[in-house]
Amino acid sequence: MTDIFEEIESEVQSYARSFPVVFDRAQGPYLFDVDGRRYLDFLAGAGTLNYGHNHPVLKEALIDYIQRDGLTHGLDMHTVAKEQFLTALQKYILEPRGLDYVVQFTGPTGTNAVEAALKLARNVTGRHNVISFTNGFHGVSLGAMALTGNEHHRGAAGLPLTGGTSMPYDGYMDDDLDTTRYLEQMIDDPSSGIDHPAAVIVEAVQGEGGLNVASDEWLRRVEKICRERDILLIVDDIQAGCGRTGTFFSFEPSGIKPDIVTLSKSLSGYGLPLAVTMFRPELDQWKPGEHNGTFRGNNHAFVTATAALEHFWQDDELCRHVQDNASLLTRRLTEIADSLPKNTVQLKGRGIMQGLSCPDGEMASSISAASFKRGLVIETSGSEGQVVKCLCPLTIKSEELNAGLDILQAATLDVVSNRFKKAS
Amino acid sequence: MTDIFEEIESEVQSYARSFPVVFDRAQGPYLFDVDGRRYLDFLAGAGTLNYGHNHPVLKEALIDYIQRDGLTHGLDMHTVAKEQFLTALQKYILEPRGLDYVVQFTGPTGTNAVEAALKLARNVTGRHNVISFTNGFHGVSLGAMALTGNEHHRGAAGLPLTGGTSMPYDGYMDDDLDTTRYLEQMIDDPSSGIDHPAAVIVEAVQGEGGLNVASDEWLRRVEKICRERDILLIVDDIQAGCGRTGTFFSFEPSGIKPDIVTLSKSLSGYGLPLAVTMFRPELDQWKPGEHNGTFRGNNHAFVTATAALEHFWQDDELCRHVQDNASLLTRRLTEIADSLPKNTVQLKGRGIMQGLSCPDGEMASSISAASFKRGLVIETSGSEGQVVKCLCPLTIKSEELNAGLDILQAATLDVVSNRFKKAS
Amino acid sequence: MTDIFEEIESEVQSYARSFPVVFDRAQGPYLFDVDGRRYLDFLAGAGTLNYGHNHPVLKEALIDYIQRDGLTHGLDMHTVAKEQFLTALQKYILEPRGLDYVVQFTGPTGTNAVEAALKLARNVTGRHNVISFTNGFHGVSLGAMALTGNEHHRGAAGLPLTGGTSMPYDGYMDDDLDTTRYLEQMIDDPSSGIDHPAAVIVEAVQGEGGLNVASDEWLRRVEKICRERDILLIVDDIQAGCGRTGTFFSFEPSGIKPDIVTLSKSLSGYGLPLAVTMFRPELDQWKPGEHNGTFRGNNHAFVTATAALEHFWQDDELCRHVQDNASLLTRRLTEIADSLPKNTVQLKGRGIMQGLSCPDGEMASSISAASFKRGLVIETSGSEGQVVKCLCPLTIKSEELNAGLDILQAATLDVVSNRFKKAS
Amino acid sequence: MTDIFEEIESEVQSYARSFPVVFDRAQGPYLFDVDGRRYLDFLAGAGTLNYGHNHPVLKEALIDYIQRDGLTHGLDMHTVAKEQFLTALQKYILEPRGLDYVVQFTGPTGTNAVEAALKLARNVTGRHNVISFTNGFHGVSLGAMALTGNEHHRGAAGLPLTGGTSMPYDGYMDDDLDTTRYLEQMIDDPSSGIDHPAAVIVEAVQGEGGLNVASDEWLRRVEKICRERDILLIVDDIQAGCGRTGTFFSFEPSGIKPDIVTLSKSLSGYGLPLAVTMFRPELDQWKPGEHNGTFRGNNHAFVTATAALEHFWQDDELCRHVQDNASLLTRRLTEIADSLPKNTVQLKGRGIMQGLSCPDGEMASSISAASFKRGLVIETSGSEGQVVKCLCPLTIKSEELNAGLDILQAATLDVVSNRFKKAS
Repeated sequence: MTDIFEEIESEVQSYARSFPVVFDRAQGPYLFDVDGRRYLDFLAGAGTLNYGHNHPVLKEALIDYIQRDGLTHGLDMHTVAKEQFLTALQKYILEPRGLDYVVQFTGPTGTNAVEAALKLARNVTGRHNVISFTNGFHGVSLGAMALTGNEHHRGAAGLPLTGGTSMPYDGYMDDDLDTTRYLEQMIDDPSSGIDHPAAVIVEAVQGEGGLNVASDEWLRRVEKICRERDILLIVDDIQAGCGRTGTFFSFEPSGIKPDIVTLSKSLSGYGLPLAVTMFRPELDQWKPGEHNGTFRGNNHAFVTATAALEHFWQDDELCRHVQDNASLLTRRLTEIADSLPKNTVQLKGRGIMQGLSCPDGEMASSISAASFKRGLVIETSGSEGQVVKCLCPLTIKSEELNAGLDILQAATLDVVSNRFKKAS
Repeated sequence: MTDIFEEIESEVQSYARSFPVVFDRAQGPYLFDVDGRRYLDFLAGAGTLNYGHNHPVLKEALIDYIQRDGLTHGLDMHTVAKEQFLTALQKYILEPRGLDYVVQFTGPTGTNAVEAALKLARNVTGRHNVISFTNGFHGVSLGAMALTGNEHHRGAAGLPLTGGTSMPYDGYMDDDLDTTRYLEQMIDDPSSGIDHPAAVIVEAVQGEGGLNVASDEWLRRVEKICRERDILLIVDDIQAGCGRTGTFFSFEPSGIKPDIVTLSKSLSGYGLPLAVTMFRPELDQWKPGEHNGTFRGNNHAFVTATAALEHFWQDDELCRHVQDNASLLTRRLTEIADSLPKNTVQLKGRGIMQGLSCPDGEMASSISAASFKRGLVIETSGSEGQVVKCLCPLTIKSEELNAGLDILQAATLDVVSNRFKKAS
Repeated sequence: MTDIFEEIESEVQSYARSFPVVFDRAQGPYLFDVDGRRYLDFLAGAGTLNYGHNHPVLKEALIDYIQRDGLTHGLDMHTVAKEQFLTALQKYILEPRGLDYVVQFTGPTGTNAVEAALKLARNVTGRHNVISFTNGFHGVSLGAMALTGNEHHRGAAGLPLTGGTSMPYDGYMDDDLDTTRYLEQMIDDPSSGIDHPAAVIVEAVQGEGGLNVASDEWLRRVEKICRERDILLIVDDIQAGCGRTGTFFSFEPSGIKPDIVTLSKSLSGYGLPLAVTMFRPELDQWKPGEHNGTFRGNNHAFVTATAALEHFWQDDELCRHVQDNASLLTRRLTEIADSLPKNTVQLKGRGIMQGLSCPDGEMASSISAASFKRGLVIETSGSEGQVVKCLCPLTIKSEELNAGLDILQAATLDVVSNRFKKAS
Repeated sequence: MTDIFEEIESEVQSYARSFPVVFDRAQGPYLFDVDGRRYLDFLAGAGTLNYGHNHPVLKEALIDYIQRDGLTHGLDMHTVAKEQFLTALQKYILEPRGLDYVVQFTGPTGTNAVEAALKLARNVTGRHNVISFTNGFHGVSLGAMALTGNEHHRGAAGLPLTGGTSMPYDGYMDDDLDTTRYLEQMIDDPSSGIDHPAAVIVEAVQGEGGLNVASDEWLRRVEKICRERDILLIVDDIQAGCGRTGTFFSFEPSGIKPDIVTLSKSLSGYGLPLAVTMFRPELDQWKPGEHNGTFRGNNHAFVTATAALEHFWQDDELCRHVQDNASLLTRRLTEIADSLPKNTVQLKGRGIMQGLSCPDGEMASSISAASFKRGLVIETSGSEGQVVKCLCPLTIKSEELNAGLDILQAATLDVVSNRFKKAS
């Protein structure tokens, strides 16, 4: 059945290697393969399916739109679908949070939104350097890749990457170093060798980087460092945003207000490509068409995004559900960790992006494989792929979440006990 | 009605400025605004809607897929929708043309496909330099932008762009210079200051660059230069491909076989984001996940793309239709040019990407504006925006094409005669 | 008298601003201006005149050579003068220290020697990144400048500087951070965002950076980090070498053996331009003439360098003298510091490159100015110019050293008491 | 005798390979090796010894200066020697030519002077791109190397070189292309892919590049292109300046006035390291010490430079002598060329930098080797080392010049006839 894939699809595939079946349908937290086998999806499009697969409300809105020949592709032209999306974004997200952002539709991928953010920051400030953090992931086009920590991605550039300086993330040196103090000193010291930055780009929770969490206090200190030195603060909320951590934006609990925010992944709510870069109006110094792209007006995505905002973000029901699920997740993962020999695995993450850090990538990928055999799709992240990462839909019911965690628990025990057997 | 756009959409908008209405629906070659006014669409998503808006066959396939909860978002996992797309691409496009390409699904934007092509070329050859051409357009993410000629886009980088060398396109110095001879000499001369390139990237017809056409002979010479010097040849067929010039790939008449080809825009056939980078199997040296991206498996786009390939590319009916329309277009544009004072405008382009080069961008944009008033959406391109560019759907009927050209003719005469009046 | 300087010499001058007289002659530790006024020289060509001005033994050798029409300029051709220099370098410096280095004559400036070292390291390893340290100074040509910390110099590039990563020097975060542990973690972490380096370049004492001293233990840890990871270790000994710290190379006490060493400044012994890059024979992968330069065979400099090596480095007399002077210097600077309100100034440095760190650059430059009025030429260094730096000739007699320090003491007291007066 | 060279001098040596003896003394146009053998020097330090070796007038001035303990090394401080040099430069060179340049003493190498010129141009204009020409040579430090055409040097960087764009020099495409028209179009076309340049850097005669000569008309057109577009014009006169072409500056016959001029090589007149960057006063926007360097005040070089200016440049005797010698050189080289099978070699160059272009580098280096056996030191240049280059001292007497050319003629005949023998 997979002949055509082997025959002509490039070796660059990655997830297809972990889950070697052909998927056909999907509903809510479930994937179905061609043989009708059902899988719980704790990957959820790497954070793209916060409302599950093919949510009926969004589905209906999309089918209606298609059936009435709503404009599908509109470059950056004004459309009814875009108007409704902007109105909903303003009403349900920006206004209630006191954010007076301007919205730029970039090419509908996260990396494109990051590229736009970087250009804007560089042009507005007239500086070239952007500070990113260890284990940060911002995309693999050349500009975003320069700020991505992972050497697997960086090495593919075939060029030295320029324009970025990597600094230690919160907790990078354990308790030995307040990394904001280091950041501050390197920026302030005129002989540090670090060019005064245009911007700092940061994730509040590093999804690809291994579920590392920045504390609220750390984020506030980073914001303060930026404010006092005329440096723009960019929060890349592509993976951690859209409710994943229990609030729409991952940075809400910290109280910071970034100058620029990038969103993508779950923004359309249906897995359709969409990305925006949002920023303070004073920064909107773009000239017409300077940053362009064919698909920056993906109207199907506007339709589902609007439906998602209206359905999920008029009240705090989803947020409370996420927080409940997050607590459940913490509790169950703690149980798993506690059931293993001490310090075998550590809990990582926040909200519905939590996981278990294993001693090495091999153990993590064995757990992923063992889970898949039991009907659970779950992936790894981190510098060595050592973190098993739960990214299930936010909308998952507690019994489904428990079912998935039962599988994860069994798989983990299996893998760990096998390893101990081998070792003895 | 446009309040929300003025309020919170970024100034980066471009097309929305030329066509200041709010569009709602679209069918075939027609756009409809919120007031029900109908417009002929000679922009067609800048070459993204080769089969017109919301083609019924594709629409039906898409609705069916959605209704049956077909997987929407699948990262790079194997899905039935992808399988069918690859099968159709192989059967209707690659095999009949003797192209044994491997297919990489990149982030679903043209610029992402170009970024992947550049990485591959650099890594396979171990060289960093890529030759592009004057007036070439390959995207606005940092890597692709380095190979894009336009200073409006380049200047937005906020960083010196690295990794590219710009060379004169076919006809750049009129008849004074065989630009392939210059290219060859600069590559061969060990003291030219041009580092031996990993690749040459070229468009057979430059869409954004102003409908400049490379002759078949020129393309063959470029291919020969590459072959003899171990340089990879990349054809960026994002705008000119998918039938726009009368064959599926724009380079078919020349007989060349590029090492790498990028496709996007009309690939999904419905305006949905999709992009691929295809290349000779020997070049498939990617490591798993080296170039990744959230939306590289846009299954809705696979569904419509498959329907488009099956519907339009099983025989040569569409190609013949394009060639007929192209002839009509040439004839009518010639008539327009001939009706004006000598040398006021020149014909540019090939296939259904032809247009009129005006003395300046102001005249071209006036013609676009005057056309829009008459119900025709048509845009400009070129280094100064001086070329009025007909990019109507390939499927347009001759009477519709004529109707649009009637408008263009009237608008052009109006603008030109007004200018002559002012001047006298 | 200074008319012509005001008239046509560029504003780029720096030292000429601190010492606004016209110098004419010089002998040993003394400078004489056109009016015959004598100054003690505690700048000594910023570490270029370790044996004082116009040392009689070197002077005689040079005059003899010139008188007999010895070859002055010889590109990189073999000459008797070069032969004698290489022989002396081998015999008195390399062999006794167990260093089997190959010697490359680069253009006769420190920055050129550093450029050669960087090229070699990059080509031998096939990597591009080079790690340098906060407050490091390696020159102002584009390659070396990328590794120089000071923004005053970096900002002059007019281009983003590429190819380097700045890391914290020994003691950069006081006792809060073992900076080698940070270096090690950033290098080892595949997601740190730091590309695996070709080399680490370091000064054992940072002259321009403000007399920061790397401990022996720190240098050994840096060497170990490099050895274990196939990273080349470059010691830039341009200012701290040639005996300045009490041994020929500044790194001798630490016991490390760098892969590459750069020397310049005092190498010729007479203030004549000369620079070498020395490295392990296995690294000598240069192709003929790859790194060239007109003046890389400055035979006058070979003559004085040979005389200097023969006169000063056959035994340990000079080293003992330096160590005695260094002790004297430490004692006297401590006295000065102790005579001031607590924590007003701090001692910095090692060997005959010690000084006083002031609260700000203004105080340091006032001390320099007040010293000059009293007949002492002394300069400042450090990120803010806050360190008054004693760089007198190594050969200075203790009574001359004391005389200079008497002036420095008086000047410092004056400046400090004036400031306290103003403040009160 | 050459043991120490083999033992510890790096493989990077180049000239030493062509002339494998050890030189000892030198006088006027003659080199003497350790065995007392005499060689006519048609290399003259690659243009550094325009007044021959150890000219007695300069020698006397230098010895006097040394004997009276004149300051040898003075960083950038004001000295009597510098004052006298600036006065002579102003009086004999700048004023008579109507050049109101400001003089910057850079590190005493050509590449350092070029680095300073590039920084200045970039900072003054706020642009990064600098246009250089095919076969141009400007040095091998990273900034200058980016503008050097030769891949042998470029490849040693170990980094992609940034900041430059290479354009075709005069005559690069024979008569097929007016290269200034191409330059103009590429600069003016906003979609050419060439960022608007800060500066154009050019040699009036390309010494290392193979004695290519820019016509006066071409230089004037380049100047005009720069003037009209606010681009700075830099003439790198390091090899062709100081009288080598029959006027002090090589560009004098063309009547252009560059914004920035770099000089080095023969400036000191004695082979001592010295370099200056001169520019229009309005460009002197350096901040103190921004571009620094230890040896930028090489007072010995000031002394000999002053003596050279006073001795050779008070009247036009030297220039007339050069022009006579240049005519003789042209005549004799023409004779040699005419004596060979048609089109075997071509004349190249201007003034006392003329030579013969051979079909390949092997023939040229054979001629150099055969000349050396006969007592003539002569080298090759050009992209493949195919040009035998006469760079004898300007002061050479006609009988000495003839003697050298007799050797060159014999060597050339020998090599050519041997090759024809082999071929037959």
